[in-house]
Amino acid sequence: MRISTLLHTTGAIVTFVGLFMVFPLVWALVYREGDALPLLWSLLITTGSGALAWRLTPRPSEITVRESFAVVTFGWLGAALFGALPFVLSGSIPSFTDAFFETMSGFTTTGASILTDIESLPHGVLFWRSLTHWLGGMGIIVLSLAILPVLGIGGMQLYKAEIPGPVAEKLAPRIGQTAKILWTVYALISAVETAALMLAGMNLFDALCHTFGTMATGGFSTRNASIAHYGGLVQWIIIVFMLVAGANFSLHYYALRGRFRNYWRSEEFRFYLLIILFGTLVLAADNLATIHPNLLVGVRASIFQAVSITTTTGFVTADYEKWSASAQFILLMFMFIGGCAGSTGGSVKVLRVMVLFKQGLAELKKLLHPRAVVPVRVDGHVVSPELALNILGFTFLYLFLFSLASIVMALLGMDLVSAIASVAATLGNVGPGLGSVGPTDNYAHVVPVGKWLLSLLMLLGRLEIYTVLVLFSRDFWRK
Amino acid sequence: MRISTLLHTTGAIVTFVGLFMVFPLVWALVYREGDALPLLWSLLITTGSGALAWRLTPRPSEITVRESFAVVTFGWLGAALFGALPFVLSGSIPSFTDAFFETMSGFTTTGASILTDIESLPHGVLFWRSLTHWLGGMGIIVLSLAILPVLGIGGMQLYKAEIPGPVAEKLAPRIGQTAKILWTVYALISAVETAALMLAGMNLFDALCHTFGTMATGGFSTRNASIAHYGGLVQWIIIVFMLVAGANFSLHYYALRGRFRNYWRSEEFRFYLLIILFGTLVLAADNLATIHPNLLVGVRASIFQAVSITTTTGFVTADYEKWSASAQFILLMFMFIGGCAGSTGGSVKVLRVMVLFKQGLAELKKLLHPRAVVPVRVDGHVVSPELALNILGFTFLYLFLFSLASIVMALLGMDLVSAIASVAATLGNVGPGLGSVGPTDNYAHVVPVGKWLLSLLMLLGRLEIYTVLVLFSRDFWRK
Repeated sequence: MRISTLLHTTGAIVTFVGLFMVFPLVWALVYREGDALPLLWSLLITTGSGALAWRLTPRPSEITVRESFAVVTFGWLGAALFGALPFVLSGSIPSFTDAFFETMSGFTTTGASILTDIESLPHGVLFWRSLTHWLGGMGIIVLSLAILPVLGIGGMQLYKAEIPGPVAEKLAPRIGQTAKILWTVYALISAVETAALMLAGMNLFDALCHTFGTMATGGFSTRNASIAHYGGLVQWIIIVFMLVAGANFSLHYYALRGRFRNYWRSEEFRFYLLIILFGTLVLAADNLATIHPNLLVGVRASIFQAVSITTTTGFVTADYEKWSASAQFILLMFMFIGGCAGSTGGSVKVLRVMVLFKQGLAELKKLLHPRAVVPVRVDGHVVSPELALNILGFTFLYLFLFSLASIVMALLGMDLVSAIASVAATLGNVGPGLGSVGPTDNYAHVVPVGKWLLSLLMLLGRLEIYTVLVLFSRDFWRK
Repeated sequence: MRISTLLHTTGAIVTFVGLFMVFPLVWALVYREGDALPLLWSLLITTGSGALAWRLTPRPSEITVRESFAVVTFGWLGAALFGALPFVLSGSIPSFTDAFFETMSGFTTTGASILTDIESLPHGVLFWRSLTHWLGGMGIIVLSLAILPVLGIGGMQLYKAEIPGPVAEKLAPRIGQTAKILWTVYALISAVETAALMLAGMNLFDALCHTFGTMATGGFSTRNASIAHYGGLVQWIIIVFMLVAGANFSLHYYALRGRFRNYWRSEEFRFYLLIILFGTLVLAADNLATIHPNLLVGVRASIFQAVSITTTTGFVTADYEKWSASAQFILLMFMFIGGCAGSTGGSVKVLRVMVLFKQGLAELKKLLHPRAVVPVRVDGHVVSPELALNILGFTFLYLFLFSLASIVMALLGMDLVSAIASVAATLGNVGPGLGSVGPTDNYAHVVPVGKWLLSLLMLLGRLEIYTVLVLFSRDFWRK
């Protein structure tokens, strides 16, 4: 582990993030609400500090696999630390703990907020808040489709061959090129959503902010009432794009090149739709019977929440805490499934859940045919025992972290449901939970220690746990 | 699958169970509370029906591995069906649904009860209720140490070599002999507990009933207040014997032969103590700060509940729902860990949790040393990938069943916490849960459909899921 490498890459990432502050600055100049100067200062401090670290360290000839864990983790940490500046300097979020929580929530595309009155914030700061989602989502796509498979984390190797690009064999040197292709896809779809939202009546500002929240499966809105603020058309548009954002982006790449059939060929994508269909049906049955006697409204509210939670977006159109216990339990379970691998969605991921499910059924078959080889396949490819164990290890650590953190949150004074839900919603990068951190609440009341813990959970969840956890092992820092 | 084999073995098991009804009959004759005749009828019907099925079918020359799944499942089902007779015929539990729930809860050593006033039951019926625990525990020890390893269910093969007996190589033909050895150990320890409880002031009746509840990690008490009815000495005795019952019985076998060191040599046993120590510490810290300012009482209540829930016994000395949210969460988590493999405890089992934990850490090591082989070991033996996947499949199916059943219980009208806890407490064979099925409540208010579902969960949990689930596959019934 060379510290200079770490400084070099983190500096580059921070500079990159800082340059993006020019966009909220433009909005601040348009709306003139006093946040232009704080944003300018933030931009200068961020790019200045980033550039210093970046330019004063030698460019590493190569980054080892081991170093890339630290590069990714510190990259996200650096972005969240400097990204908090606009909130603090503008006075929108005076406490640094709160500002860091909000920014980490943004960059990890979680969408958990400590704000009690979102609409009171100046437009520049609001734009920055949503932009952190979009930048985080950008990072995640490259991370999950280009970096994690190489690092060998949690079964993502299954997608080694899925990464779009001219040569499918050599991966590491292609990360840059893969990134460019994926970002183009990401930007293109984002542009389409923005246009669609504007056609549905949103102004450019709100359309951009909600596009950022959707495409990154983030969930920050510019409205206190989240998407409930808008009409049915906007809600349907957001449903569609949440579905898109929760699917593997390499499928979108193929679709843009005319190969639409790949969607249906992908077992994970089919499983993903199946999960959402199941959730929607249960929620709708429940909703129509009690809360929303109007068929259209009831179905829309059900599908919106099923999609929003499964994709770990966290937008809200209804106070689902008023729904039945079964509805709430399903939403809580969905927080543990998450989006597809290679999407901007968080949590355990559909792919892993699917492999675990198939492994469970395979064991059942083995009991009847003890001598038979019962391979688990995904898209026709056999999942090796090593890969399945990799997924097993990941999922167990995920649940273990969830349990441990829930105990701590409860020890910090939260009630049982809120403690469980706050951890599930941050570790899974969902955003809103249940109880005191439900869809109509926020995280403002959490004690500072709790906010730092939840921020760490967001990072752990976003970077697939191992990327961060490995930094805590003694082996990692050994020569 | 030969139906005659199934009738033969189930008949034998039912006859065996029926013969044990002579003991409650004796108590009924001692106390003369009107339950003697119903017990006599139950005995006659049970042994009669069992003997008919047993003697009228040919003795199978051998039982195939496949048939043994059905033999085990139908054995338990038969016992619960006929075992419900004393409750129904005596009028103690008029509804058959309730009586079946109570009996299944007994034979699966769960301890969930639909009774609202236990002390109003006649002594004969009460004795039968507790005896179902002891008989169920007897069945479980043989199942987990002699049958499941052969069936290859959920990693229990790890204990193939652990089974006591003269020849360690040939297992299947030794099931009968192994059973005898283990039952002797079980009976011996039970006798010691009964003696200890009597020395502590209990009468023979209560001492026997509570021994049955302890050794089977069942949890039925003869008192409405459960173990809170008794003083500190009784509570400490029960803590010790719950710990014994939640450990692998082959360790006790070795200890009785003078090899005490095997306890400490067993990684699972050490892990088991560690879990309980961790739970006790968190509960105690919490208890001493708020509920029980008295050091001794607070520590005793904490250790009692940690041991009672981890071993899946379900005895209660305190209303832990009045404890903090963290305490309740820990107890809920412990419902998913359970006793050691080869104990009478239920749930996922310490062994599996330990392997999953080690696998999670092994994956972390592999990230740093991609080319290294990082084997997971238990007691020095390498856990093969096949075995680890077996455990993975089991654990995932367990969590999947838990999720699915929780949704159903919530759909049946339970609140979120009660729905989750009722499923965790029955699938894990614990007994008391949280919410409306908490330590001071019972399962009487659950709707009939819910009671049947929970009864099925008790059976699924007790028989390690696969044993029952495999019967639902089309392959199973095919020639």
